[in-house]
Amino acid sequence: MTGTPAPFTAEDYASRMRRATEAADAAGLAGLLIAPGPDLVWLTGYRPGETERLTLLVLRAGQEPVLVVPTLEAPDAAKAAGAPALTLRDWTDGHDPYEVSAALLGSTGRYGISDNAWAMHLLGLRERLPDVDHVALTRALPMLRAVKDAAELERLAAAGAAADATYEEIRTVGFAGRREREVAADLDALLRRHGHSQVDFTIVASGPNGANPHHEVGERVIERGDMVVLDFGGLKHGYGSDTSRTVHVGEPTAEERAVHDVVRAAQEAGFRAVRPGAACQDVDRAARAVIADAGYAEYFIHRTGHGIGVTTHEPPYMIEGEEQPLVPGMCFSVEPGVYLPGRFGVRIEDIVTVTEDGGRRLNNTSRELATVD
Amino acid sequence: MTGTPAPFTAEDYASRMRRATEAADAAGLAGLLIAPGPDLVWLTGYRPGETERLTLLVLRAGQEPVLVVPTLEAPDAAKAAGAPALTLRDWTDGHDPYEVSAALLGSTGRYGISDNAWAMHLLGLRERLPDVDHVALTRALPMLRAVKDAAELERLAAAGAAADATYEEIRTVGFAGRREREVAADLDALLRRHGHSQVDFTIVASGPNGANPHHEVGERVIERGDMVVLDFGGLKHGYGSDTSRTVHVGEPTAEERAVHDVVRAAQEAGFRAVRPGAACQDVDRAARAVIADAGYAEYFIHRTGHGIGVTTHEPPYMIEGEEQPLVPGMCFSVEPGVYLPGRFGVRIEDIVTVTEDGGRRLNNTSRELATVD
Repeated sequence: MTGTPAPFTAEDYASRMRRATEAADAAGLAGLLIAPGPDLVWLTGYRPGETERLTLLVLRAGQEPVLVVPTLEAPDAAKAAGAPALTLRDWTDGHDPYEVSAALLGSTGRYGISDNAWAMHLLGLRERLPDVDHVALTRALPMLRAVKDAAELERLAAAGAAADATYEEIRTVGFAGRREREVAADLDALLRRHGHSQVDFTIVASGPNGANPHHEVGERVIERGDMVVLDFGGLKHGYGSDTSRTVHVGEPTAEERAVHDVVRAAQEAGFRAVRPGAACQDVDRAARAVIADAGYAEYFIHRTGHGIGVTTHEPPYMIEGEEQPLVPGMCFSVEPGVYLPGRFGVRIEDIVTVTEDGGRRLNNTSRELATVD
Repeated sequence: MTGTPAPFTAEDYASRMRRATEAADAAGLAGLLIAPGPDLVWLTGYRPGETERLTLLVLRAGQEPVLVVPTLEAPDAAKAAGAPALTLRDWTDGHDPYEVSAALLGSTGRYGISDNAWAMHLLGLRERLPDVDHVALTRALPMLRAVKDAAELERLAAAGAAADATYEEIRTVGFAGRREREVAADLDALLRRHGHSQVDFTIVASGPNGANPHHEVGERVIERGDMVVLDFGGLKHGYGSDTSRTVHVGEPTAEERAVHDVVRAAQEAGFRAVRPGAACQDVDRAARAVIADAGYAEYFIHRTGHGIGVTTHEPPYMIEGEEQPLVPGMCFSVEPGVYLPGRFGVRIEDIVTVTEDGGRRLNNTSRELATVD
């Protein structure tokens, strides 16, 4: 176990805000409108609860960053690590926050806006500034948070190591005769014991439940002979973990072993496709080809991966049609699966970071089919 | 303690969807676009995690309700209580969910969209259907969820009673010498013990922290002589609680007692302004006038109240400028406060429902200044 990393400083946040502003400018945007959520956390360290009251970070070239914030929440905003690098502009209940915001913006041009900004706020801004155009931040600047620096990689590696330790220990807790929910509670406890401050998901999908990739957990009692998909992750030191392994309760059949081998080969092929300059879709294609060649194409019903950082799901996406080139420092999951309706599923997932000459896994537990009791 | 209320049925949800569709039609809207969150929970009982993948309920007059949903999540959606009353239209990763959605909509007209729909999704829809206009649901149909039926009122009353029981017990736990965070943990445990499945906030704002209405909780050690604002709530049987009382550790000074008396009189005045046909802003004005008359106008820095239902904060808002008339069945907070910077704060809050001839409190603990140890 490594120690707690040094907290990000106001200068770290100032640097991120500068880079974001420059990237927006280079992309021909008039500025960025950042809503509460991962973009705001990444840019300022500020994590307000989401409410109907407008909180909006305005970034424009040639202008200091300004955070529009409800008066009520201004004291909390002022405590954020990035607060020294921005100006607070507060507004009081009964006043129009869109007017306050509009005064910070030009009356024309195209602004990037956080994907998860509320539609209500976007419509409020459009009403004030009808000639301003907007584009979702992920579409305008998909790579804004995608390339991680050394301090971020350190956190992601620590989160990955904690998830790996969780996987090593969960195999010893006993599966047969227990409910999925109970094993999920063990996963939650282990992730927290290994330093996670937040657990985002603890999927325990046994037997036929494994054939639903988004089955989380239920009351089903796990039986001998079950395949069990385990997929778990959360945040440690503010950065995400996300790993999947599929285990078998007792000895697997030849078919179960064969399907697992296909997924493992697909995961390996996806991993090997990772290198600077390859497109995101190449990772998907490489993994998918292995599954298709084995005759399971129709049973791999999701994309191959998603980015990870201050959230556990974010761009870039490893999906057909995504031509974004991979860049060193990007971090994302490689997680092919095969889902046989009514029978079982298999998924294997590692977080991978792009290096100068290929990829490096941040999850390093065995990908062989493990048997558990 | 009352028992668990009967779950809402598919017919209950079908009826809500019909009412919503009719209300939209009557308001001149071409339809409603409902995103994951409280609107969707209220209309269908379906509560997906929020992701970048589009989930959208489309309601249009003369058309059956359709839920656009990622293929991955379709099995979960199909299990929602309201699912029998709607058609699922799933889309697979790599396909365009906005194209799927656009096929369900007309190419012109004005649609109401959930306040908290993601800006990214709104922009995606606008790109497909550039001549369609959108308006935030709260603005187009602010009262869509505001008037509660008998089954909803029963749940809100049960949640209020659970919060009241929590207040009765929290006064006995001991305050002096303990951290705010510890008392907040007691509040959390009590709310859950009294049947809450979710705790949304447990504010313990002692001494000078009480002067920040949104201070949640911290490491401050509560001392004898402190005023302590307690404000807590969450969901029980899917409906919200939210109550505030301000207690004093040991004997209060004459000034503390006087400020508390002002807030109590303001809360009473706000409550007495509740009756069918009065405007929301009348409740705010009534409470605010009492505080202004006592010379504390500048220290009451938030609106007087907010609605409550499947969330703990929603329309209608008791705020200057809100001319919406009160209607029997509406439920909202009446929560004036006075905040003296660097010194202390006082807030008193009850949930109130509008009756045929006035208002009825769903919180019924004493509003006298209680002393605690």
